[in-house]
Amino acid sequence: MAVLCKPAIAVPEYVITNEETLALAEQLHGDHPQLELILRLIEHTGVLKRHLIQPIDQVLRHPGFDARSVVYEEQTKDRVPAVVRQALDQAEIEPRQIDLIVYVSCTGFMMPPPTAWLIGAMGFRPETRQMPIAQLGCAAGGAAVNRAHDFCTAYPDANVLVVACEFCSLCYQPTDLGVGSLLSNGLFGDGIAAAVMRGDGGTGMRLERNSSYIIPETEDWISYAVRSTGFHFQLDKRVPGTMEPLAPALSDLAEAHQWNASKLDFYIIHAGGPRILDDLSRFLDVPPEAFRFSRATLTEYGNIASAVVLDALARLFDEASALDGHRGMMAGFGPGITAEMSLGTWTSDAAAAE
Amino acid sequence: MAVLCKPAIAVPEYVITNEETLALAEQLHGDHPQLELILRLIEHTGVLKRHLIQPIDQVLRHPGFDARSVVYEEQTKDRVPAVVRQALDQAEIEPRQIDLIVYVSCTGFMMPPPTAWLIGAMGFRPETRQMPIAQLGCAAGGAAVNRAHDFCTAYPDANVLVVACEFCSLCYQPTDLGVGSLLSNGLFGDGIAAAVMRGDGGTGMRLERNSSYIIPETEDWISYAVRSTGFHFQLDKRVPGTMEPLAPALSDLAEAHQWNASKLDFYIIHAGGPRILDDLSRFLDVPPEAFRFSRATLTEYGNIASAVVLDALARLFDEASALDGHRGMMAGFGPGITAEMSLGTWTSDAAAAE
Repeated sequence: MAVLCKPAIAVPEYVITNEETLALAEQLHGDHPQLELILRLIEHTGVLKRHLIQPIDQVLRHPGFDARSVVYEEQTKDRVPAVVRQALDQAEIEPRQIDLIVYVSCTGFMMPPPTAWLIGAMGFRPETRQMPIAQLGCAAGGAAVNRAHDFCTAYPDANVLVVACEFCSLCYQPTDLGVGSLLSNGLFGDGIAAAVMRGDGGTGMRLERNSSYIIPETEDWISYAVRSTGFHFQLDKRVPGTMEPLAPALSDLAEAHQWNASKLDFYIIHAGGPRILDDLSRFLDVPPEAFRFSRATLTEYGNIASAVVLDALARLFDEASALDGHRGMMAGFGPGITAEMSLGTWTSDAAAAE
Repeated sequence: MAVLCKPAIAVPEYVITNEETLALAEQLHGDHPQLELILRLIEHTGVLKRHLIQPIDQVLRHPGFDARSVVYEEQTKDRVPAVVRQALDQAEIEPRQIDLIVYVSCTGFMMPPPTAWLIGAMGFRPETRQMPIAQLGCAAGGAAVNRAHDFCTAYPDANVLVVACEFCSLCYQPTDLGVGSLLSNGLFGDGIAAAVMRGDGGTGMRLERNSSYIIPETEDWISYAVRSTGFHFQLDKRVPGTMEPLAPALSDLAEAHQWNASKLDFYIIHAGGPRILDDLSRFLDVPPEAFRFSRATLTEYGNIASAVVLDALARLFDEASALDGHRGMMAGFGPGITAEMSLGTWTSDAAAAE
């Protein structure tokens, strides 16, 4: 029984509101031929504020890829351990009880991965397996949960730590002036999430089945250009329309489990943008408020990439509305275009003890 | 029963001999204060020749990280499918029977990962899971096999495709003049390997147990500096001495399986360099010829990073000396300093049919 326990979340201390973002866009791109469109798109993201690891004037100054890589590593080492510590505490698991760390982050690159440092720094066993994933973008949060679930299926007593660390502001590229880039500048935020999947015991989402789906021939729709200035995020305007081809994959997963995707008790969905959530609720025939956790993440933090699904799950915990036996779905979406989906049932230690 | 079938291997058509490497080192670094040491180190690698994706004069001209990223993607798309096709044929598995692709490559970066393209281009199912790993360096070959094994343990009917694609020559950095860098320039080669792990049937190494081990506080010993010029490989001079702390981890794995690491029938070991193999045979008390597959890889191709263990395994198949029931060990080593180890028993379709 792989139970995904309550995620710990941290967003950094520097805040930018959507008003400030709009004012900045006007100031920086006053002569952009599509400024009106860009402002309208940013207004309609549903984002109220985002959190950044550095003050905005520093974010806007690109210090070069060398310096950004140094910042990425420093910020990782400064900020990740406390989130991991909290996730372990919430799951009542000690570092030495963790068998695998799935670490996902697409907004910087380190080899060896941060896990190599984390294992020594936080007292994980030298035998801890490392699964670092940098190339699945926003879908990596769902992928991390699914690969953790697979691991617990293989080794039922295992405990897995999942970490999603995204410093999207370190991918800001001042020379990218396409509509997709300028919208992204107003959509993405920084955030760190961590959660423990317990093989035995724990309160949370007991994973039961997972699946992946990639829409053929869409690998160019969300991508990085890897350049001397770092990772350049490239967003195709067809991306907001991807829920039409992906919704059937979610329905199929539920059907394979004899569940109905339209009638679940909770939904933890990647909040890529407002249209993703609006469309998916329509295609799945689910009331909009079913996605309130994802909407809250988007409103308060922006799109924090792979960390979104864990943040949305933490909000479900905070609402305390899930009851033992409630059925739910988690879905991450990202480059590929890929969906990483799972189904689970709410379970609590109290229920298990009965 | 997860059986790792015969790997397919491809090395590119441009060849550089060790004599040519030595001559180049003298020509390019005639005034280097440690030239004698560097030449001696390169002479002692045991490498006779290496294969490169481009002619050596092109390798030596750094065209910038933007251009290298384009070459990485083009070469991936040009060269990987044929290797994958051959691996599938050797395992008698169709693309539609593959459930997971573990794709490891640390010598370039793409998001989405090459799997997103490969799935559509080669007729894998849209439901195929993707596990791209870029951050485990040379250890990623062993890690890929181990994560494939875990997946087959979770889903006993599953088939997994493992791909290791390393274009080490795309990480050549003409401005890096440290001894570790100049040695690496003479040690690493390009190569692609792919293999299918079958959940049911198949001839090859039936995986039974795997483990990881990281030597604490060694994360700086093998690492990339991620810069505007790309990935800069940083090799500490303590790395060749790492078999002393890692050999006990291999012995422990065997002991946990009631096997004796000194008395196995075959060994598939990452050929990081000659001292790695010499030391490990000493610390494990295994005759040097037990590592003949790894030595052959090093001699003929150089260190092809994550692809080494698959190439060495292919040589065991070619030798046709493994008999049903033979016990063996596979071990990849890389940044962390991490070991990814596994134990397995040789099995053939013929034996299964008896």
